[in-house]
Formats: sequence, C-alpha cells, structure tokens
Amino acid sequence: MQKPNAADGIPAGKVITDPDSLGRYAHDEAEWAPAGLPLAVVRPQDTEEVRAVVAYCARHRIPVVPRGAGTGLSGGANAVDGAVVLSFEDMNRILRIDPVERLAVVQPGVVNDDLRAACAEQGLWYPPDPASSPWSTIGGNAATNAGGMCCVKYGVTRDYVLGLEAVNGLGEIVRMGRRTAKGVAGYDLCGLFVGSEGTLGVITEITVKLRGARPPERTVAGFFDSVVAAGDAVSRVTAAGVVPSALELLDRHCLKAVDAWKNMGLSADADAILLGRVDTPGAAGDAEAETIRAAFAEAGAAWAEVSTDQAEADALFQARRLAYPALERLGPVLTEDVVVPRSRVPQMLARIEEIAGEHEVLIANIAHAGDGNLHPLIITEPGDDAARARAQLAFEEILDAAIAFGGTVTGEHGVGLLKMGGMDREVGPVNLAMQRAVKAALDPYGILNPGKVVVSGAPLAH
Amino acid sequence: MQKPNAADGIPAGKVITDPDSLGRYAHDEAEWAPAGLPLAVVRPQDTEEVRAVVAYCARHRIPVVPRGAGTGLSGGANAVDGAVVLSFEDMNRILRIDPVERLAVVQPGVVNDDLRAACAEQGLWYPPDPASSPWSTIGGNAATNAGGMCCVKYGVTRDYVLGLEAVNGLGEIVRMGRRTAKGVAGYDLCGLFVGSEGTLGVITEITVKLRGARPPERTVAGFFDSVVAAGDAVSRVTAAGVVPSALELLDRHCLKAVDAWKNMGLSADADAILLGRVDTPGAAGDAEAETIRAAFAEAGAAWAEVSTDQAEADALFQARRLAYPALERLGPVLTEDVVVPRSRVPQMLARIEEIAGEHEVLIANIAHAGDGNLHPLIITEPGDDAARARAQLAFEEILDAAIAFGGTVTGEHGVGLLKMGGMDREVGPVNLAMQRAVKAALDPYGILNPGKVVVSGAPLAH
Repeated sequence: MQKPNAADGIPAGKVITDPDSLGRYAHDEAEWAPAGLPLAVVRPQDTEEVRAVVAYCARHRIPVVPRGAGTGLSGGANAVDGAVVLSFEDMNRILRIDPVERLAVVQPGVVNDDLRAACAEQGLWYPPDPASSPWSTIGGNAATNAGGMCCVKYGVTRDYVLGLEAVNGLGEIVRMGRRTAKGVAGYDLCGLFVGSEGTLGVITEITVKLRGARPPERTVAGFFDSVVAAGDAVSRVTAAGVVPSALELLDRHCLKAVDAWKNMGLSADADAILLGRVDTPGAAGDAEAETIRAAFAEAGAAWAEVSTDQAEADALFQARRLAYPALERLGPVLTEDVVVPRSRVPQMLARIEEIAGEHEVLIANIAHAGDGNLHPLIITEPGDDAARARAQLAFEEILDAAIAFGGTVTGEHGVGLLKMGGMDREVGPVNLAMQRAVKAALDPYGILNPGKVVVSGAPLAH
Repeated sequence: MQKPNAADGIPAGKVITDPDSLGRYAHDEAEWAPAGLPLAVVRPQDTEEVRAVVAYCARHRIPVVPRGAGTGLSGGANAVDGAVVLSFEDMNRILRIDPVERLAVVQPGVVNDDLRAACAEQGLWYPPDPASSPWSTIGGNAATNAGGMCCVKYGVTRDYVLGLEAVNGLGEIVRMGRRTAKGVAGYDLCGLFVGSEGTLGVITEITVKLRGARPPERTVAGFFDSVVAAGDAVSRVTAAGVVPSALELLDRHCLKAVDAWKNMGLSADADAILLGRVDTPGAAGDAEAETIRAAFAEAGAAWAEVSTDQAEADALFQARRLAYPALERLGPVLTEDVVVPRSRVPQMLARIEEIAGEHEVLIANIAHAGDGNLHPLIITEPGDDAARARAQLAFEEILDAAIAFGGTVTGEHGVGLLKMGGMDREVGPVNLAMQRAVKAALDPYGILNPGKVVVSGAPLAH
C-alpha cells in the first residue's frame, strides 16, 4: 500500500504494515479456508477514519476486508492478497443504552458479552448469544447474522438490528434502518446488510433492539443411547408445540472429548445428551418443562429429568460450551453449520453417520437441535493429507444432504469462503444472479471483501 | 396492449380490457393518490402464467403493477398508464399448513383472515393482523410489510415471511429465503422483497412462520381527558417495561364519528381512549395488566380498569375497528402512518394538534400507540379544494415532525406514491441512491410497478 498522505484523511501512523501484525490479522477461525496476505491493517478510531480508508481504497481499487474479533468459522474475515484489513478493536464503545426505547447504540468493536453485561445492569437483555460471545463483536455478529443457543425462541441477530451506519463501496457514510419499533420507508437495506459479511459495505455503528430482563430458566436433561434417538426427541418436542429457550445436542464424540480434557464423566452415561431450557414463568413454564421431559422419555431416553440442581444444570451447559475447544484438541476441525426442517433432524443425523462411515472420517455433532441447526464437526489427524481430502468430500456431501432434506448449507456461520459452492447449489442460478446484481450495484468497484459470499458481481440481464 | 398470442404463454381469454374492469383495478384505497389507466388486467391462475405475463411485458417494456385486494393506503397498487395489472384473486389457495414445522405455504391471493382461521383450526396462529385483515391478502401484506395491532409484541409481516417465490424483472421464477428456522445462505433477498411493494419482483408464493395458538387476552381500558395525557400513559407503560399484546389509541374525533354512526356513547366519557391487551398467561399476565392500569391512572386517566366483562372489552375493540370507516363517512381521508420513538408519543400528538390548528383541518388520531405508530387522519369536506390544499401541507408537516422526533414517515402502509417525498427527506441522498441502485439492478427494464417507492433506478457511481 502506497502510504497515504494527510490529504487522504488517513494518518500514516494508523497504517500497520509489519509482517507479524499482518499475519495475525490475515485469517479468522476457519482453519480450512485459504487466506491471502494483506497489504496493511488499519485500526480506525471513528466512522470518519473508516470513510477515509474506504474512499482511498475505492480511488485506488484496493480491496477492503472488515474484521471483528476474527472468530468466524467460514473464512469471511480472511484477508485477500493486497487488501487493507479494517480491524475494529479500537471502535468498542457502547454509545447508548436506552431503557425506555429498549435499544442500544454501539460501535462495531463492542464484544457481545460486554454489551449483554451492560444491558443486564439496567435490567435489559440483548438475546443473540453465539458460542463466541466472550470474544466476538456486535459488528461481526451483524455482518454474519450470528445465531446462538436462544435463537430457537428469540431469533437471530437480524431480528435485533434496528439500524446501521455504514460506509458504502464509494466511501460514503450511509444510515439505514430506524430507531423506532416499526418502519417501512423504502427497501430494507439494513436487513440486507445484516449477514452480507462486509461485501456490501463496512458497518460503523449498530442500533439494536433490547428485551426486558430474562426470566430464570429451568433445565431439562436427557441421556440417550444413540444420536438418532436424541434427534427423534427433538422432533417430538417440536410436535408437542413447546418452544424451548434452548435445545442443545451433544453426541458421544463431544462427550468423550470433554471427558478426556475435563474428566466430567459424561461419556460413560450416554451416547448423546439433549439439554433443554424453558424460561416461561410460573406454572406454564413448569408444564413446558414437563412436556419436554416426557418427549425425551417417549423417544427412549435412558434418563430424562427436569433438573432441580442448578449446579448440575450449569455443569451440563458448561460441557456444551467446552465441546468445541475440546474437539479442537484432537486435530484440525472442519465445521459444518447446516439447518434442516426440525422434523428431519433424526434422518439428517443418521445420514451424517453414514457419510462419516463412507469417508472414514470422525464427525462429531454439536447442534442447536431445537431449530434444526446442526454443527457436524469433521476432525482429522494433524498432517494426514488423505484424511483431509476425504473430509472435504464428506463436507460437501453433508451440504448436499441438507439441501435434499429441504434445508440450508449455513444457519449462522455465513457463506464466507467455505460455503460458496454449497450456497450456489442451494439457491440456484436465478437467485445467485440476483445476488450478484445486488453486489455489483452496491459495490461497483468490487473492493468490498471481494471473493466472499458471491463471486464478482454482474448486472442482471438476459 | 397488443393481444398476446399462444406463443407468449398467456391465453388471450385471461386478458381483461373492458373499461369498467380496468377502472375497478386502477386504484387502491389511497383516495388522494393519482392513478393511471391500465392497458389490461390479467388474473393469473398459477406461477407459470405470472411468469409468462412478466416475460411478455419485459420483452415489450410494458409496466407491470401487481395487486392484492387493493386495500393499500399509499397508492402502491395504483395503476400507471399503459400498465398490465396483475390481480391475484384467483391465486388464493392455502397450499400447506405444517403444524410440526410451524409454517404455512400460501398463494399471494389468500385473504389474511382466511389464513388465520385455517391456522386456528390446527391450534396455530399467524400473528400479523392489519386492520384490513378481512379483505387484504398475504401477497399484499408481504409486499407492504403490513403491521397491525399485535405488532407491538409479535412483530410485523417481515418477521413471519420465511420464504418467497417470485418472478423477477426479467420474467424469471426465483425462490428466496428458506423453510428452516434459521438460514444465512447469501443476501437476504427474501427480506428485501418484503415491503418492496412490487417494485423488485412479483410475489407468487409465500412461506410464513406460525406460532402456537394464542393464549387468552385480558383487556385494560383507560379514558382520558386529552390525547396528550393518553400519550403520556403510553410512555409510562413502555417505561414500566411491560410489552402489551396491543395498545391502541382513539381520540375524540374517532369516538364522535363512531358514536354518530353506531351510537355507542363513547364520546361523552372521554377525549381519548387507550385500549391495552395482555396475553401473558397466569399471574405474570395479571401483574402486567395491573401495571398497565396503574400507568394509565398515573397519567391522569379519568377512568382505568382491567376489564372483567368480555362483552364490554369486545365492544371497545369493535369501536377501534369501526373508527376508520366511521371517519370516512365524514369526507375524503388523507391517512398518515408515522412512527416516533415511544417516549415521544405525547409530544408528537401535541404537535399534530398544533398542525391541525395552523392549517385549519380536522385531524383525527388512531394509533398503534404501543409501538409509537400513529395514524393521524386528515379529513376535509367533500369538494372543498382549499381545505384539500391545506390538508396536503399538514400531511407533509406531520412527516417532517416525525422525522424531527427521530421517527419514520411510514410504519406499515408503505411508501407507495404518497410518501415518496417524505421518504427522501427521511433517508437522505446516499441511502436513496443505494435504493435506486438496487432497483436498477433487479429491474433493469424498469417495468416493475414503476414510479412507486423510488423513482427510476440508476447505478451507484461518483
């Protein structure tokens, strides 16, 4: 990158180009996705600096890759060669929490848990709770439309983003969305930006909707002899008409990995665990918890109880949180993020077991089972290139199976680099052409996180 | 319209061109919006016929104006000269209601209340409840992102549209969105289409999310001596942290008009009425109802009670439903649809009273007060052209006041023709240029409901 001068509005001291830093900012947590070498990293302090950088890059046709905490799992924040990485850790202020209007205004670098803690102090709740919440940022969450455990009842990030400020592909500052409860003034550009992974603009401020403080939760645990039986329990819960505030699944590979690391003694008891939560207050909540317990039992749970011991319940959810890092200790993890209709969860889990067998790879399953969002994790021995190739075949077959069941290739991680082929197969050529046309319209120079989500934009035409 | 031949895929018998029919299909219920004269009306039977019509129109550069029941209040469904109006009353089948996945798949011409009734038979609930629900269609509701009374707790149409099938500006069939609980495979084209008022494509099938059967509601009524005091009560309810399942306001003009028509004796008791509803089950719901009652009392209500008489409660909500037709009996109604932050409701109501006085026009207020969505209704004597001109000045001043309070010019009726100027002032030039670029990208021939929402599209460039 030609060092910008004062006239460009980018203080030269803000431009980081030492190789160590560049390497650190070059990739997210999608270990299997390719990453390029950035030209420079800029850590902007405010919207005006973001504007100056993007305008400079637009003039010189330099790619811009925005980046939150780099916890993404699809390669969406990976650098491309010659790009300027815009990293938001210095724009991490909560600008406003408004208890009357029930909204918060934050800079993109605010960490999810920090926002949640600040809201809790005022008796408010920001629901989206991706597993990365201790590290991931609201900007990254908005860019990927992040999900989490409570989505099954409370929705995803898009359901909470009321308004955005962003810098578009021409380096212009734009406000989208609203601060009010409703609004239909024109196209929903705000919703379009959520989940667009930095390919349509760079988010510089986010206004999110808040809810009142969350009521206490009851936990229902079920231990099963097979992952397919656990999947059947999920279908039964859905069919019973209960909407749990969480419904998580862990299979035996996860339980073993957690035991090997933390010695929690879970894998001796079950081949799969379901963890349900209910936060409806009073007798109605008691009835929901009992309905979930009964559904677990009817699906053949070896053990199913509404927990009366908070410490035990917390330990089970702690195992859920530890599962991913525990599996990462075994080798490189290729993370899936498919969603199938809830009634298809058992068949999809059976199909994943088949695919693992056919390709001789280890596939562990963590799932936000209550909304059919499965995270099969394909794990290979470090350095085993043949296994790596088999894992990639299994990865694409899982995507195809999800599509065949009427599902989607990504529920909450985003397309990034890893799901581009799968998305193309899922949405079909007309939808894809329309996405490309939108990309071309809003990023006419093709500088915004190029090569992610959709390949080069093109106008729509016969 | 040159009569299409068999090769175009449009049976000539489907093309209606007699002047009476053309007139009937030329406008929606926005009495003040201009309407052109269509060339022809087509009532398609299936998606393939829609495709054939749009493809024909794309080839011949003929405008296409899609239309549901024509209950819109912004002129979004008004014909433009020389257009083909696509009217969906014959595509009115509910294709599927799935209790396990909690979704329904419908054709665009299904009437909102018909879908709600069919869902109720299976213990399910489709929440969006615009006042037009006995007549308006799910296609029209999706095209305008319709709201209603229960939005304050349950969200708007966009929150329920999971997937769409549509015909784009090239006459191609496209599927957008998903059938699963979550999904982030590419840009949210589905959400972008919702509320785009037929300017980006013609919706041919809608997949909507359903909820479990609605629990019974309690009603809280408050009678106030001034509309501003009622507005203050709304702010107090919000500040108390209660989310009612409805919170509706009627001012003295509405009460008088209802009395003049139906002799319900309401206007003798109050200058403004607030009607709250709560559907949280059990003791928690009782507590919420009492909190609302107390907020009404603290704001100075002459009378505030949790209703124990269902007949009385129903009569009050019946008055709410009758208010709009009762006012229409007085003369042409110019309908506003502004939203302000909830804490600004009292100031906005005061400002509307000022504007009515300054311009010597009658402005009645109906409001979805709980989400700050006000419907000031400007009413003039039939044939009084001077009053009409003053009404139009008042209309634009109300929009500017809403913008100044941090609000929006339209909460649920859409931009159509009446709010184009207001939207431009609200969103600013960069946002507007981006909307136009999206329009140009997805409707390259400019045939889709042209002249509505955004004027002619243009690519984004310096």
